[in-house]
Amino acid sequence: MKVIEGGINAPKGFEAAGVMAGIKYENRKDMAIVYSKEPCVVAGTFTSNIVKAAPVKWDMDIVENSPFAQAVIVNTGIANAGTGREGMECCEKTAEVAAKILGIPEKAVLIGSTGVIGAKLPMDRIEEGIKKLASAKSEDKEAGTDASKAIMTTDTVNKELAVSLEIKGVTVTLGAMSKGSGMIHPNMCTMLGYVTTDAKISKETLTGLLKEDVKDTYNMISVDGDTSTNDTLLVLANGLAGNEEIKEGTPEYEEFKEALHFINETQAKRLAGDGEGANALIECKVINADTKENAKKLAKSVICSSLTKAAVFGHDANWGRILCALGYSGAKFDPDNMELYYQGSSASMLIYKDGTGTDYSEEEASKLLSEKEVRFLVDVKLGNESATAWGCDLTYDYVKINADYRS
Amino acid sequence: MKVIEGGINAPKGFEAAGVMAGIKYENRKDMAIVYSKEPCVVAGTFTSNIVKAAPVKWDMDIVENSPFAQAVIVNTGIANAGTGREGMECCEKTAEVAAKILGIPEKAVLIGSTGVIGAKLPMDRIEEGIKKLASAKSEDKEAGTDASKAIMTTDTVNKELAVSLEIKGVTVTLGAMSKGSGMIHPNMCTMLGYVTTDAKISKETLTGLLKEDVKDTYNMISVDGDTSTNDTLLVLANGLAGNEEIKEGTPEYEEFKEALHFINETQAKRLAGDGEGANALIECKVINADTKENAKKLAKSVICSSLTKAAVFGHDANWGRILCALGYSGAKFDPDNMELYYQGSSASMLIYKDGTGTDYSEEEASKLLSEKEVRFLVDVKLGNESATAWGCDLTYDYVKINADYRS
Repeated sequence: MKVIEGGINAPKGFEAAGVMAGIKYENRKDMAIVYSKEPCVVAGTFTSNIVKAAPVKWDMDIVENSPFAQAVIVNTGIANAGTGREGMECCEKTAEVAAKILGIPEKAVLIGSTGVIGAKLPMDRIEEGIKKLASAKSEDKEAGTDASKAIMTTDTVNKELAVSLEIKGVTVTLGAMSKGSGMIHPNMCTMLGYVTTDAKISKETLTGLLKEDVKDTYNMISVDGDTSTNDTLLVLANGLAGNEEIKEGTPEYEEFKEALHFINETQAKRLAGDGEGANALIECKVINADTKENAKKLAKSVICSSLTKAAVFGHDANWGRILCALGYSGAKFDPDNMELYYQGSSASMLIYKDGTGTDYSEEEASKLLSEKEVRFLVDVKLGNESATAWGCDLTYDYVKINADYRS
Repeated sequence: MKVIEGGINAPKGFEAAGVMAGIKYENRKDMAIVYSKEPCVVAGTFTSNIVKAAPVKWDMDIVENSPFAQAVIVNTGIANAGTGREGMECCEKTAEVAAKILGIPEKAVLIGSTGVIGAKLPMDRIEEGIKKLASAKSEDKEAGTDASKAIMTTDTVNKELAVSLEIKGVTVTLGAMSKGSGMIHPNMCTMLGYVTTDAKISKETLTGLLKEDVKDTYNMISVDGDTSTNDTLLVLANGLAGNEEIKEGTPEYEEFKEALHFINETQAKRLAGDGEGANALIECKVINADTKENAKKLAKSVICSSLTKAAVFGHDANWGRILCALGYSGAKFDPDNMELYYQGSSASMLIYKDGTGTDYSEEEASKLLSEKEVRFLVDVKLGNESATAWGCDLTYDYVKINADYRS
């Protein structure tokens, strides 16, 4: 597997575009399309929030019941959540317009929305946007980048990625784009994440792979503990690479799995590191836990702790807050028999062991906390299970962005 | 029951004091004592955090195993948590010194600490502080106020309260002091809360009452989702009022229960409203839930949501965030059949019903969100159970305080 240039339209047969449709923002791209020349099998995971946005309900139906999908239409600025029956009608209209112009069935059009909850979509602009997208869509790398920019809300950078791998001499490619920022505490998957591939793979196999992989990737990040109403992660596979079908239990399956995991983990970490107002990515790795479940609880508790996040923002080696977060995680461990390390790009410091702090240098510890990636390693010495979670620091800008967001 | 002047030393036979001991802060009172002339039965609830501070372990042992308690010694600035064996030795020494000077058994001395985790207590100053406290302790109202000020950390106001009630013609009094601010998400009780009473009541009855009451009071508040290592709530009853013993199943029991609940709810709300950096108290009341458990989950999810808290700070009527928090609470409800109201001191506005926002005035809603107490009422129309939770807004100052706290 190797990382290649490009993003969502890197795999064969995929086109993309991002255009200005004036949904909410001015002078920026705010609608995107991903289109496959051939029908795709599609796998998806969605928010576990009881309050599901209309496009989430729409996509869930397609993933479950449609024989294939062929396009994704995304708008930013308005989430189309908390919009009742009218919200579903917007999805129906969007699919109708896109299907007609693209010459595909309505139930092959997936829809994504992100932005303010409760506002109504301006359907006239959405319709104009779809027309622009249909004529702008292309295989060019720039068009994929445009799409990844068009799905941003308070994200500060676009997030695209592509990898290729050889499957029995045939090159298979995966591409991805995601957006995150606030209301990020995925509990199935993230705000909006899209992966394309030209691999030939069945819907069942792809779905199984995706559902397993999100548990260790998108479900292990948090910006603010708020699980969105719009979380959607979709993988579309059009089979145009011409590989022999990928089947479970083969070496090719493992290679494809590794590539998909790399895509999902990288994109998830990017969402965490670019959380609203964030200065730093926080990683917490827990090793030697008694169960995988407990390793995850411990790691996630640390990266969700507001006090730990604020201490990282202040470059303050206040390890007591990490210990405290481990302690209320609900997972088993012995605070008198565990070790906590701070790790940076070129150093690892033992901070806590045998029930109390070590004689570490505050100055050196503060330096590690000033890096763009702050890493905590927790060894609980109980078994062989490990897990990693990712979050970001809590800053003035998080408060500023979210006190002002709608205005 | 009526609210009276005074606080922790309002009941008969209780003395208190607060003194400057120079534990961490300069030029402010940072050690407190509560002392009863007669032995007290004591009930307590403590943090559910696996990482328990040394004084929490010390107090748990006394509450469980000692026949009585007679004094509480509290210091602020240093939490004496994450301090290993040395931390327990500090408790032993504190009790030894206090017991000797007060002429009571060591195992009648309860201890409370709050502040930075991991730092060591300066035992020489603690010892000097205890001597000062022993000579300063008094029944004067000012001495009780001094004690309530001495236990503050980043609290902006001291929190004391007293009530009296008649039990078969005998006046019984309850007094209280509490401190909160950050790392407040009690999961047994709050950071530090003390209640005294001169009522005659058995340890079993008092313990039963307390354990039930914290579920609806201290366990329903949150400042930042972080459950402290030091949470302690103690009730001391010395019986000096001379009432007939309060027994379960009597009208007097109900009256005493009501008084204790009033004390706990009022103090808990004060902690929430004075959360670190907070401008406003946020109350969320959920009515007509199918179960009490679900009502609590829904109410607590809203007051814990960082995005909702930031929106209150910005006076932004972004109800989608409340809907979102209800949705990921884990409790059952139908987003298409519920109502959300914003309530202020003189108005109540229906904001959301039948799956979408109402035609409310943004300006009026923003006004309600500018009050010092912001109230959300959620009617989920499923049953007869209700619950209320309290939190505070998320402000720049919360981040500032917690990025700087140790320095």
